[in-house]
Amino acid sequence: MRTLIKGGTVLSSSGAVEADVLVDGETIAAVTTPGMLTEADTVLDATGRYVLPGGIDAHTHMEMPFGGTFSADTFETGTRAAAFGGTTTIIDFAVQAKGTSLLSTLDKWHEKADGDCAIDYGFHMIVSDVNDATLKEMESCVDAGVSSFKMFMAYPGVFYSTDGEILRAMRKATETGSTIMMHAENGIAIDQLVAQALAEGKGDPVQHGYTRPPELEGEATSRAITLAKVTGAPLYIVHLSAAQALAAVAGARDEGQNVFAETCPQYLYLSIEDLAKPGFEGAKYVASPPLREKSHQGDLWRGLRTNDLSVVSTDHCPFCFKDQKELGRGDFSKIPNGMPGVEHRMDLLHQGVVAGEISLARWVETCSTTPARMFGLYPRKGVIAPGSDADIVLYDPKAEQTISAATHHMAVDYSAYEGLRITGAVTTVLSRGRVVVDRGEYHGSAGHGRFLSRDLCQYLN
Amino acid sequence: MRTLIKGGTVLSSSGAVEADVLVDGETIAAVTTPGMLTEADTVLDATGRYVLPGGIDAHTHMEMPFGGTFSADTFETGTRAAAFGGTTTIIDFAVQAKGTSLLSTLDKWHEKADGDCAIDYGFHMIVSDVNDATLKEMESCVDAGVSSFKMFMAYPGVFYSTDGEILRAMRKATETGSTIMMHAENGIAIDQLVAQALAEGKGDPVQHGYTRPPELEGEATSRAITLAKVTGAPLYIVHLSAAQALAAVAGARDEGQNVFAETCPQYLYLSIEDLAKPGFEGAKYVASPPLREKSHQGDLWRGLRTNDLSVVSTDHCPFCFKDQKELGRGDFSKIPNGMPGVEHRMDLLHQGVVAGEISLARWVETCSTTPARMFGLYPRKGVIAPGSDADIVLYDPKAEQTISAATHHMAVDYSAYEGLRITGAVTTVLSRGRVVVDRGEYHGSAGHGRFLSRDLCQYLN
Amino acid sequence: MRTLIKGGTVLSSSGAVEADVLVDGETIAAVTTPGMLTEADTVLDATGRYVLPGGIDAHTHMEMPFGGTFSADTFETGTRAAAFGGTTTIIDFAVQAKGTSLLSTLDKWHEKADGDCAIDYGFHMIVSDVNDATLKEMESCVDAGVSSFKMFMAYPGVFYSTDGEILRAMRKATETGSTIMMHAENGIAIDQLVAQALAEGKGDPVQHGYTRPPELEGEATSRAITLAKVTGAPLYIVHLSAAQALAAVAGARDEGQNVFAETCPQYLYLSIEDLAKPGFEGAKYVASPPLREKSHQGDLWRGLRTNDLSVVSTDHCPFCFKDQKELGRGDFSKIPNGMPGVEHRMDLLHQGVVAGEISLARWVETCSTTPARMFGLYPRKGVIAPGSDADIVLYDPKAEQTISAATHHMAVDYSAYEGLRITGAVTTVLSRGRVVVDRGEYHGSAGHGRFLSRDLCQYLN
Amino acid sequence: MRTLIKGGTVLSSSGAVEADVLVDGETIAAVTTPGMLTEADTVLDATGRYVLPGGIDAHTHMEMPFGGTFSADTFETGTRAAAFGGTTTIIDFAVQAKGTSLLSTLDKWHEKADGDCAIDYGFHMIVSDVNDATLKEMESCVDAGVSSFKMFMAYPGVFYSTDGEILRAMRKATETGSTIMMHAENGIAIDQLVAQALAEGKGDPVQHGYTRPPELEGEATSRAITLAKVTGAPLYIVHLSAAQALAAVAGARDEGQNVFAETCPQYLYLSIEDLAKPGFEGAKYVASPPLREKSHQGDLWRGLRTNDLSVVSTDHCPFCFKDQKELGRGDFSKIPNGMPGVEHRMDLLHQGVVAGEISLARWVETCSTTPARMFGLYPRKGVIAPGSDADIVLYDPKAEQTISAATHHMAVDYSAYEGLRITGAVTTVLSRGRVVVDRGEYHGSAGHGRFLSRDLCQYLN
Repeated sequence: MRTLIKGGTVLSSSGAVEADVLVDGETIAAVTTPGMLTEADTVLDATGRYVLPGGIDAHTHMEMPFGGTFSADTFETGTRAAAFGGTTTIIDFAVQAKGTSLLSTLDKWHEKADGDCAIDYGFHMIVSDVNDATLKEMESCVDAGVSSFKMFMAYPGVFYSTDGEILRAMRKATETGSTIMMHAENGIAIDQLVAQALAEGKGDPVQHGYTRPPELEGEATSRAITLAKVTGAPLYIVHLSAAQALAAVAGARDEGQNVFAETCPQYLYLSIEDLAKPGFEGAKYVASPPLREKSHQGDLWRGLRTNDLSVVSTDHCPFCFKDQKELGRGDFSKIPNGMPGVEHRMDLLHQGVVAGEISLARWVETCSTTPARMFGLYPRKGVIAPGSDADIVLYDPKAEQTISAATHHMAVDYSAYEGLRITGAVTTVLSRGRVVVDRGEYHGSAGHGRFLSRDLCQYLN
Repeated sequence: MRTLIKGGTVLSSSGAVEADVLVDGETIAAVTTPGMLTEADTVLDATGRYVLPGGIDAHTHMEMPFGGTFSADTFETGTRAAAFGGTTTIIDFAVQAKGTSLLSTLDKWHEKADGDCAIDYGFHMIVSDVNDATLKEMESCVDAGVSSFKMFMAYPGVFYSTDGEILRAMRKATETGSTIMMHAENGIAIDQLVAQALAEGKGDPVQHGYTRPPELEGEATSRAITLAKVTGAPLYIVHLSAAQALAAVAGARDEGQNVFAETCPQYLYLSIEDLAKPGFEGAKYVASPPLREKSHQGDLWRGLRTNDLSVVSTDHCPFCFKDQKELGRGDFSKIPNGMPGVEHRMDLLHQGVVAGEISLARWVETCSTTPARMFGLYPRKGVIAPGSDADIVLYDPKAEQTISAATHHMAVDYSAYEGLRITGAVTTVLSRGRVVVDRGEYHGSAGHGRFLSRDLCQYLN
Repeated sequence: MRTLIKGGTVLSSSGAVEADVLVDGETIAAVTTPGMLTEADTVLDATGRYVLPGGIDAHTHMEMPFGGTFSADTFETGTRAAAFGGTTTIIDFAVQAKGTSLLSTLDKWHEKADGDCAIDYGFHMIVSDVNDATLKEMESCVDAGVSSFKMFMAYPGVFYSTDGEILRAMRKATETGSTIMMHAENGIAIDQLVAQALAEGKGDPVQHGYTRPPELEGEATSRAITLAKVTGAPLYIVHLSAAQALAAVAGARDEGQNVFAETCPQYLYLSIEDLAKPGFEGAKYVASPPLREKSHQGDLWRGLRTNDLSVVSTDHCPFCFKDQKELGRGDFSKIPNGMPGVEHRMDLLHQGVVAGEISLARWVETCSTTPARMFGLYPRKGVIAPGSDADIVLYDPKAEQTISAATHHMAVDYSAYEGLRITGAVTTVLSRGRVVVDRGEYHGSAGHGRFLSRDLCQYLN
Repeated sequence: MRTLIKGGTVLSSSGAVEADVLVDGETIAAVTTPGMLTEADTVLDATGRYVLPGGIDAHTHMEMPFGGTFSADTFETGTRAAAFGGTTTIIDFAVQAKGTSLLSTLDKWHEKADGDCAIDYGFHMIVSDVNDATLKEMESCVDAGVSSFKMFMAYPGVFYSTDGEILRAMRKATETGSTIMMHAENGIAIDQLVAQALAEGKGDPVQHGYTRPPELEGEATSRAITLAKVTGAPLYIVHLSAAQALAAVAGARDEGQNVFAETCPQYLYLSIEDLAKPGFEGAKYVASPPLREKSHQGDLWRGLRTNDLSVVSTDHCPFCFKDQKELGRGDFSKIPNGMPGVEHRMDLLHQGVVAGEISLARWVETCSTTPARMFGLYPRKGVIAPGSDADIVLYDPKAEQTISAATHHMAVDYSAYEGLRITGAVTTVLSRGRVVVDRGEYHGSAGHGRFLSRDLCQYLN
């Protein structure tokens, strides 16, 4: 089956060229001057469109167990929504429960995801229980294509690891060349602030923000960087939200340390003012780290330009307002942490291009090429090149759309961006050569997506 | 005429893919999976080789007038040597003489270069005489494809511009979107140090280093950055050699200012110890800024990794030891400033790949892709993509060679790297589709190279 | 003649003690527990008052020649006004005219001042003409008790020195242990901004501020620091006004370099909004560096607390609004640069104590003790200790006063602080044991003040 | 009883004056010009000597319980040794045992010290058990003259507090204006490094240094600074030993945060090379933080000059080599942590004056005046002024001595500075007017020393 995408503007992390793309089966066969090739089973007219490598969302949580409930999207609904939004790969998190092994965890996540996904997927491993057996299993995980391990400086009693545990895991990461991903907030200090707020009768959602000040994200980020320096481990800071944390990352990167960071669209577009919306409305915006004062947004956009923020992921972790978010009425600490977003990342960042915050090349780089290189998927993913998987998005930069829960495809009853006008829209999405979305119609199927065994980070110095 | 380059590993700024490249006439027609295309007039077997976009040397000085003499390479000899070394584009400097106009200067440089070059070439304009007419002409230069203007904080009485003149030119750069390139050394202070050294009877070549301390490069770099900030002008620091200057650039880049910098191979591999060689041998290494203490080398390699140094150029400006360098026997201030290098940049930086200092992708990025994007040549140059000029290098990463004046092609009687062993060597070079070098033989011709009208920098925030 | 000051709170740079002070002739004979001594010719009751070492204003310009006119205060009127304000020592600037010698300049300033001053005085030397003879004379100046040399990076064509000249003078300062004082603004760049503003028809006083942006003070400060580092010279930045300059000073001080800075009350209390007052009113506030945006004020107060700003001086350089400031109507560049202030420094800084910006100890330290140590006058001045000159101020911390040209003693027709309410007021002032001001009455005489031959800076590392 | 100290050079934190000092009973009655007073019961001839305020050692551990044993000096022997060394005040640490109250702890320490001390003494309180009751008791401690509370980020399971506990205590400190003192090393990470070293069979004393890298002191210092920033608490970093920690302190101080730090003589003079001495000799040098690489010494001296290090204390905590240090043969983690030093601080820092590292004024400031102001004892202590306690040291700056366990007065069987030659020596020491040491003879008595009820820190912004 050969598909010819003709007449478009092919984007890469370094710029744009006018070119046709020939897809043969699941992979890209050729990129040519316009019109050079004509024969194909299917021809997609990309005139006036961008032709870009499918988005890679390196941070999602589908059907994640959380306090007796689960995040609202299954791998099926979540990956379908991703596809609608121009994302053709997700890397989700397998979550080790205390007392269980990493490999059994991985098996469990394969069970959840295998056969259900609309697009290709990989896993990171959340290490909750650091012990000799777990550390040994990190090697097996790398062999099994899971080369990145997430740890938490937040959430004491749940995912939290002590600095000693982090040190041990980092040593193993150094040995294996794998990457430690860090949720960098000082959870011990935060828990104290939370307890105090609750003791003072402050239970509204906005307290979620007040009790997690940006200084405590900056602090934890600096600490993680120091531990990584002592051990030599590559470090990737997830969902960076605060100027203080960005400064720490920039400093380490200036010194050449293997430190990387991602941010998320919610930190670029939303703020603590959303958390402070009247009634219980703010609960929709409860995620950790929390939404910050607006002044941080400009810093984060700058970080995307300077590459101190290398990746944009979503931290997609949707909980319905009804029944789920509502668990925390009167006690913000009981609101499930997380926001939906997997469907709108490409659009929201394209909006940054329209607004002049980032260049077209940087859009592709932060949303596709760099995640591929960062997490060992390049050049299979992240680029339109011969031999690469034909994960391709046709994007109409002039289209207009409005984000709304009424029209989105995520299995969650609200949108954090309800009513937001966006310039640009996905027209057609190919996943490994198959058109899975076209002009708003879904042509994919659960189970089309395959597990991606990933290599190591390609950025290490 | 169709040429098929098959079996190679095609490199880009983001990584490597196994692919064939079809060249049609002067441009690249297609990049395909290996073996997909078979028909061509010529087939080049690239098995075991890298296939990379031709090098772009953004800083050369061919037949540059200097105190009654000229730099030793003509555009003919210099571009031929460049081609031998895998560089298929140079950007040379047209040098405004005081009292003359920019456009007449540009005409003069066209006269020098047109019809003589083995490879394509562009010009930057050195602005020595800032006045109303000159500033007005900057607009015409941009229209004529010369979108970058070099100024000097060094060389009082020759190229030196005052901070007021720099400010004026920067305002015009801001208006036109063009880039100010800066030789950032505090020449006024340096001249005082030179006078004092000479007054104390210190005339040896090593004094060239002692009288130009790295602090004075750091200072001038900071000052240029401030002037650029006040005016909004894009700034490109040429031939950065000192850790102090790197720190200034890194700081500005962290803040998102449009500040960029290049370094040169001589600062990565040579040091003030070379300047201090006994007899008059050190004169071979006299260039400005001077070679530094060895400790700076590690900082510069780190800067290349962190992208605080975005480009590697050569500042190729050869003067023969005999008759030219010898002008400064006994008085180091009379030694013509400059070193040969255009031929060895790609090899010397590949050596950095071999040594683990930079990645393969970063080699291509710093030596080809970024210069193309920085100076408005992308995607015509700097990438192997359909529609791009077929400037292609086949590189054997396993070959061994020894650099020597006896075998190099530059018109200069010594090599700064005499006897240095290098792993990797250029096998074949195409310039706009034509094989100009193959296995050590020259197949090009003077006049094949064409003038490149350049657009603006593509990195501006 | 013995005077006993009893019942007061004696202040020093480290705190306050309840003590009596016995003055014998011109010097302090004893500091004792309250009531220990009773015999004296005169007893001053200091109950409820601070007893502090007389203020030292290390930066004044009395009858300074400026473009055909002179600053409005003579040494007689200016030092009398200083005495009224609790300042018992000034260090004024002898101004070398181009083509004249330093020693003849010093003679000329002695002629101006000797026999005219109400309080003791010293000189700094402004070096306008750097040449072999001048440099040699710096040694004689040090011998003559003038151990600090001011240079200008501003005012091209007038006081401006090139970086090369600064370097030469700094070497001589290093040799002699003397201090280079620097007016750090990039005058070359500023002149360009001024020319452009005037060319655009912008002539109002506020343009004085717009054409001297804080970045150009930060730049010049950094540059002076680098030149001092290269030469080893002690550096004292005068009238620091901008956060950017403060950051440069703080950085150098963190590294242990001998870099010091003063600020002035006008930068702590006034802002560019004053310069922008309607009509020609803003001319009253024209001084260089210019008044800044209000945000800088907080930074400067912080600098006083952190000791990155070690001294508060006034840069007292009054020009009458009528006939003098008016020279610049329509062309801000012709407004004489300078503001009156010598009389109100102690009060304005005491107001900082009242407002909680600085401590009582820090008030004394920045306004008296540190200037004495910085400029080689300690312990003769700057402290209440046996053997020290009896320069003593009795200060009533609870008194209320309003600053006004109607009541001040400076020979200038306006006040920059007209109508400002101050808590605290000078009650009595002794200069070398003699009561020169008491409850608003002047008891001193022209010629009481003596020239102070100063030693070297006592802070050098 | 009146004592006249005549003919000496009286030192303060701002310099030196020639003056006589009259002591009346326990306090200073007058400071006068030489010879002004003549009548006294006793006259001490201080010709050729410095007369300085007695040293204040703000960090000692007398008879501190530690794993079944006690630090070797009792309050009696330790304070006597202090007096011999020119220290007339110590501030020791009352150590809360888990499960006990702060006030009962304070009682216990009063029991230990009261009636035993040769010189005056105060207490800091070590808070080991943060809970509602403890926090409430902090208020009572302040009322009882104990206004500073030490916490540990090191020693998990012993003194260690979590970041949440630190946060709680800091809030209480902010409320009460008291100071949090911090042992800033990341003990959790260190314990992991220790476990690993022991698991690898590495038991020698030098491992104590390797397992406590300076980065982990820098990290904890930064973290403490952040927690202090979030809560507004004044923070005092004890025994700072590493350049990384110094940089963190300097950064916070530049921003005007109430952050202070002390270092100790051992970090200025000794290094990890001492820890690495052959045999078990290194055990003598085991203290925490550990001795560092020599390069840190220069940074610490610089910090003393820049006031980023404000105080020099000893962390005197002696354990005999025999029977005590020996507990850790084969397992460095069992070596009691601590070194003797209370006797030699003044001499060792005077040696810094001789070597040109610090000025005479700075010697007095870091060793006496600043500790007094920092810990609420000024002007009772820390200055020679009327009304102050007559704690006075006569110091002969030309004397020569050699430090040795054979001659020192501390109750410990070794000296960390055995054989070190020192220029300068204490001649005579007065404690509250009484000569307690004179020319090597002890004239004091246990119980002469009184408890000092301290006020709050006097440096707060």
